[in-house]
Amino acid sequence: MTDRRFMERAIELARQGKGWTNPNPLVGAVIVKDGRVIGEGYHARCGEPHAERNAIAALTEPAEGADLYVTLEPCCHQGKTPPCTEAILEHKIARVIIGSRDPNPKVAGKGAAILREAGVCVEEDFMREECDRLNPVFFHYITEKRPYVVMKYAMTADGKIASRTGASKWITGEEARARVQELRWTYMGIMAGIGTVLADDPLLTVREEGRRSPVRIICDSRLRIPEDCRICRTARTYPTVVVCAMDEAGTDYLEKRKRLQEAGLHVVSVPGEKGQVDLGRLMELLGGGDIPGIGAVDSILLEGGGILNDSALQAGIVREVKAFIAPKIFGGGGRTPVEGTGVELPSEARRLRLDKITRIGGDLLLEYLAEGGDGTCLRE
Amino acid sequence: MTDRRFMERAIELARQGKGWTNPNPLVGAVIVKDGRVIGEGYHARCGEPHAERNAIAALTEPAEGADLYVTLEPCCHQGKTPPCTEAILEHKIARVIIGSRDPNPKVAGKGAAILREAGVCVEEDFMREECDRLNPVFFHYITEKRPYVVMKYAMTADGKIASRTGASKWITGEEARARVQELRWTYMGIMAGIGTVLADDPLLTVREEGRRSPVRIICDSRLRIPEDCRICRTARTYPTVVVCAMDEAGTDYLEKRKRLQEAGLHVVSVPGEKGQVDLGRLMELLGGGDIPGIGAVDSILLEGGGILNDSALQAGIVREVKAFIAPKIFGGGGRTPVEGTGVELPSEARRLRLDKITRIGGDLLLEYLAEGGDGTCLRE
Repeated sequence: MTDRRFMERAIELARQGKGWTNPNPLVGAVIVKDGRVIGEGYHARCGEPHAERNAIAALTEPAEGADLYVTLEPCCHQGKTPPCTEAILEHKIARVIIGSRDPNPKVAGKGAAILREAGVCVEEDFMREECDRLNPVFFHYITEKRPYVVMKYAMTADGKIASRTGASKWITGEEARARVQELRWTYMGIMAGIGTVLADDPLLTVREEGRRSPVRIICDSRLRIPEDCRICRTARTYPTVVVCAMDEAGTDYLEKRKRLQEAGLHVVSVPGEKGQVDLGRLMELLGGGDIPGIGAVDSILLEGGGILNDSALQAGIVREVKAFIAPKIFGGGGRTPVEGTGVELPSEARRLRLDKITRIGGDLLLEYLAEGGDGTCLRE
Repeated sequence: MTDRRFMERAIELARQGKGWTNPNPLVGAVIVKDGRVIGEGYHARCGEPHAERNAIAALTEPAEGADLYVTLEPCCHQGKTPPCTEAILEHKIARVIIGSRDPNPKVAGKGAAILREAGVCVEEDFMREECDRLNPVFFHYITEKRPYVVMKYAMTADGKIASRTGASKWITGEEARARVQELRWTYMGIMAGIGTVLADDPLLTVREEGRRSPVRIICDSRLRIPEDCRICRTARTYPTVVVCAMDEAGTDYLEKRKRLQEAGLHVVSVPGEKGQVDLGRLMELLGGGDIPGIGAVDSILLEGGGILNDSALQAGIVREVKAFIAPKIFGGGGRTPVEGTGVELPSEARRLRLDKITRIGGDLLLEYLAEGGDGTCLRE
């Protein structure tokens, strides 16, 4: 009998790899015999064994005739580790219950097919939605080859991301700020605008030792970044891309680029309309690993101000919005999370879907998914 | 043995009177004998019997020696109904467990004292916080003699209460708007600014038949209200006060007031600083029943725009904030729930305390309590 509890346990196991498996997905596996768990495992870190193999390694008795619950279709190809289908057959597992299908269209279904051909009973799409939700970045990136972009902001209960003078330290409390540190660690890139760099001189790194910091991506159309800012001074330690929209043959560009490159920054020009960075094209370059010196980026935490956030929404690259809401009121006009022109009528609003509500200290984290036809945050 | 379950039941009963008991509090009562409920009741409507008497009337067996759980200290004075302490003694109830103390400092503790003197065992402050929360308006009003003001707004996830063009129909979905109708019915007054009247020509009434609409209070410093707006045209049916800040001897004021009065509106001038209405003074007048033709107002739902909301916060009259958040993004500067000058530094923010989170359709309702020393929404 197929049992939700075992898949729930597999999902719980999968989550334990969070932050370490990129660009691999989170996967959990549970092996069950006569209603008892006889082995469980998860994919702990990129390059290490897959969940199925860890579950097999942990077996407390032979798996012959057992059921395997696994959150993602087992792989059937030789990667950094040998195919999981082989291990499943070798241990004579009788039935495999799969959550998510392999999202890569080139291999999807092959793992299940190999098992079926060998006489294993395969059940697909079991709690698929819950399993799919383990890996939004992976599912997006493997099909689109562009980073999964999460717009994050912290605002007051009256919708302000800064006080009248532009100060934003701090809107939320300590716990919420610690959560932002967690988020930075979860995504491969972090993107901010030059406005934020000029106003706050941030580091945009993960403070905790032993944790990888994301690639810093600064949108800076006119290459105004000060060479003595903290980002420039730490560029040899933390990979950093500065993206402008300048004439690549111009002396201004060439000279500043040279100086920034000497400081360890990567500089590219991706010009779009109205002298702004073409964010869609930038996502292609980042997703494809086409920026020299920077590996492929599968996910980005967008910590923009109102202008960059608006541009990102206009470019249709935002898949998720994480809004921290502090129990405070600043008052004053402007200084909101999304600026720009704004819609003319309420019916033209960009639609989101509220996915999750979490209290963090005195603050609130609202997590929204983009609700456009293609999953991006489009207008109706 | 004192049992939380019985007081929880009394609280549940009390809530059933919601919207009908003003200016009386919500009260629930449960009579328990040998661990069984033998009678329960609540205060259903102003002028009708109190909860204790309803519980006694519903007794399924004699109450002699029983326990009475009641969310508010029993009254000991002759009002529209005889004192409840008499009924309790008459039925030989042995023990009375009280949640809230009578908040009226002049009578507080007298009900309990009378019962004790007669030999009844009285336990006070049992689940007091939960019981006090049944009647924030009542507790505030009876001690302060000013209305309890609840600031309500509906904004997008990016903090906008209107689109670029000022349109605000609709930010939230149908269920959330139905909830606003419920709120209007719960409070005795509803307050809006002239900006809202000019932009939306609202009615500010409760649509459901048989339900009382709140007194409409329009803040209109320069008495600009158009005589043909829907509020003016319905002023004979729904009591309406227009509050300005004009020279009461001026011809402009006198002439417009005359015309508005003929249409059935009540007009007062309560001038404060900078040509604005003195909101603190206005609350005194409304709470004291000092505006001719309008009874005392114990509570106000403030459905202001950003300017009036800011003034209300500045005046320190706001006790609660109810923020509806729609899963949408408008973009654009300005158009936020609280405008005005705004704080200079984040540390100067007005503090709230997140009290309750409710999903309503696709929207969210965040309920905050003011966190100033005196319970108003003061800056730190």
